[in-house]
Amino acid sequence: MESAIPPHLITTRCRHRRVDDDYKPPYPSFVARHGADVSRVVMAYFGVQYRAETPAAASTADFMVLVSRADGPSHWDLAHYVDQAGFANDVFVAYWDDVVRFDSWFEPARAAWTGPGAEGGGRFIEVLRPAVERYETLFSSLGRPEGIAVIAEGMSGEVLEHAYWGGMRDRIPLSQTSEMRSLGKPTLVQDGPRLRVIAQDNLCMIRSGQDWSDTDAAERRMYLDDVEPVLREGMYFLRDQGLSIGCYANRYMRLRGADGALTEKSYGQSWWQSLSALERWAESHPTHVRIFGAAMKYLSSLGPAARLRLYHEVTVAAADEQFFEYRGCHAKTGMLAAAG
Amino acid sequence: MESAIPPHLITTRCRHRRVDDDYKPPYPSFVARHGADVSRVVMAYFGVQYRAETPAAASTADFMVLVSRADGPSHWDLAHYVDQAGFANDVFVAYWDDVVRFDSWFEPARAAWTGPGAEGGGRFIEVLRPAVERYETLFSSLGRPEGIAVIAEGMSGEVLEHAYWGGMRDRIPLSQTSEMRSLGKPTLVQDGPRLRVIAQDNLCMIRSGQDWSDTDAAERRMYLDDVEPVLREGMYFLRDQGLSIGCYANRYMRLRGADGALTEKSYGQSWWQSLSALERWAESHPTHVRIFGAAMKYLSSLGPAARLRLYHEVTVAAADEQFFEYRGCHAKTGMLAAAG
Repeated sequence: MESAIPPHLITTRCRHRRVDDDYKPPYPSFVARHGADVSRVVMAYFGVQYRAETPAAASTADFMVLVSRADGPSHWDLAHYVDQAGFANDVFVAYWDDVVRFDSWFEPARAAWTGPGAEGGGRFIEVLRPAVERYETLFSSLGRPEGIAVIAEGMSGEVLEHAYWGGMRDRIPLSQTSEMRSLGKPTLVQDGPRLRVIAQDNLCMIRSGQDWSDTDAAERRMYLDDVEPVLREGMYFLRDQGLSIGCYANRYMRLRGADGALTEKSYGQSWWQSLSALERWAESHPTHVRIFGAAMKYLSSLGPAARLRLYHEVTVAAADEQFFEYRGCHAKTGMLAAAG
Repeated sequence: MESAIPPHLITTRCRHRRVDDDYKPPYPSFVARHGADVSRVVMAYFGVQYRAETPAAASTADFMVLVSRADGPSHWDLAHYVDQAGFANDVFVAYWDDVVRFDSWFEPARAAWTGPGAEGGGRFIEVLRPAVERYETLFSSLGRPEGIAVIAEGMSGEVLEHAYWGGMRDRIPLSQTSEMRSLGKPTLVQDGPRLRVIAQDNLCMIRSGQDWSDTDAAERRMYLDDVEPVLREGMYFLRDQGLSIGCYANRYMRLRGADGALTEKSYGQSWWQSLSALERWAESHPTHVRIFGAAMKYLSSLGPAARLRLYHEVTVAAADEQFFEYRGCHAKTGMLAAAG
């Protein structure tokens, strides 16, 4: 059993972990491990928004051109969803573990994506570039990293800080010394046709994924009939009513494969006023209590035989680690809704 | 909004509360307030165990004699349950807020209850005498205190530390400076026919009560059909399989009225290896997740119109604040099971 916080990020605490040293989690979980030389990572969401009846086929080609440029991302994936205004959205997420490389790549990529030459339809860019002290990951199993974990050096052994409320916070190295409190609200900055959102210190983002591609027929049916509808209901609550509880935006998306077809992998990505707001929703809101209950029932009935894979990554970003830019998107897109 | 920790017990913290100062609980709750002159309280459980077919009618009379003596309790109540071995148990709980009075009362009462002259059937005494820094209460509504709260000076206004996992710990004043960790296991001491259990520092006890006497027919049916069966299942899990998760014993009881008849009030009383063990069960075990889910559904569908009253008291007792004694009881009675 090891700590989710890697040895080189362990500091003298002024804040305690929620569980004591003899805590034993009831099932195993794992975290991504970067090399000690990685001090900062980048998670860059590039979105294109279009009327579902006229797919913006060009967007994937545009993105492929960008990522193939020098200093492009070490890993990226593509997901799809239809948003609350009926628009289709394709969201590319690209990952770097070297902010110098990212910086050299980003400005021309940004100009191509949201600048004057960009294609019709909506475009957006949402970037976090957190210090490694400011994010955490969690995986229910080994062997198939997703998201930021794909570019990590490897995975941990079984970690201690999980399977209790507060584990998410306890896995973030900065929680050793900071409460990561967050106040204020996002503001809008207009720059011609481009809208930027300036959010507050300690804004929080979660990518929380599900992968049922390895399940057999019986397990797949159980996931799709008993768990997914409850998950979807919670995701839609966050999308439609999240602002009341500090959730600025939520996208519940399906990953596309290399051929562009939808896969048996999904993830929810949401922006939160604070880590506390995410904690409160997760642990006590009826919509997530139902998700938790459905997942607990599922996992306890299947036990170690479960082939469903679950993972997430959670970042608490400093004010200068964030970038939000929208062009031609409707007013409920991403952080625009929160700054409106 | 006030802190659950009264001003005179607020100390310089070396441990943080789990929520920050701008946390706003989603519904009101209240705690009992003692006068600042009360430094210690006493919760004394006196039980009698008998074959259900031959009720020990004498026990109530015996207890009435004891409580009417000088320095008797400021409040007591009586509850009933049938235990896992099929024995009926009547449990009197008596409360003091003056340990000098209790001490003067206790030794002769103890001799009468578990000493040589005691009646046939099983008898037991379980006493906690915690410093006020070592326990907390929580009430969903005002106007009908139960348990230790009956002898408090009054009730608080709305408190901040509730409706999140960890609120229980944060309401205990000692949590400001101690993790209240608990190790080791209870041991048995034989003293002729009397068995005593010596438990460890920071043993934890909860009394968690339900009162549906004010509900109208529709709400009563909802409580009894949708919530109570789930609660009962969880209580029986703790009773029958609790040891595996650090629950030493659990009694799920119905209060008796002045005439001895069962009332529309129940409570679960359980002994735990540690506050942490209680926290882990409450927040993640399927049996309590179901209770929580059923209660959330119930309360969110009824809202402020709910007439169900809920309360609890939780103590984390130092080693010298505990006393457990059993005579003629079966081996699964109370703390005997844990020390066996």
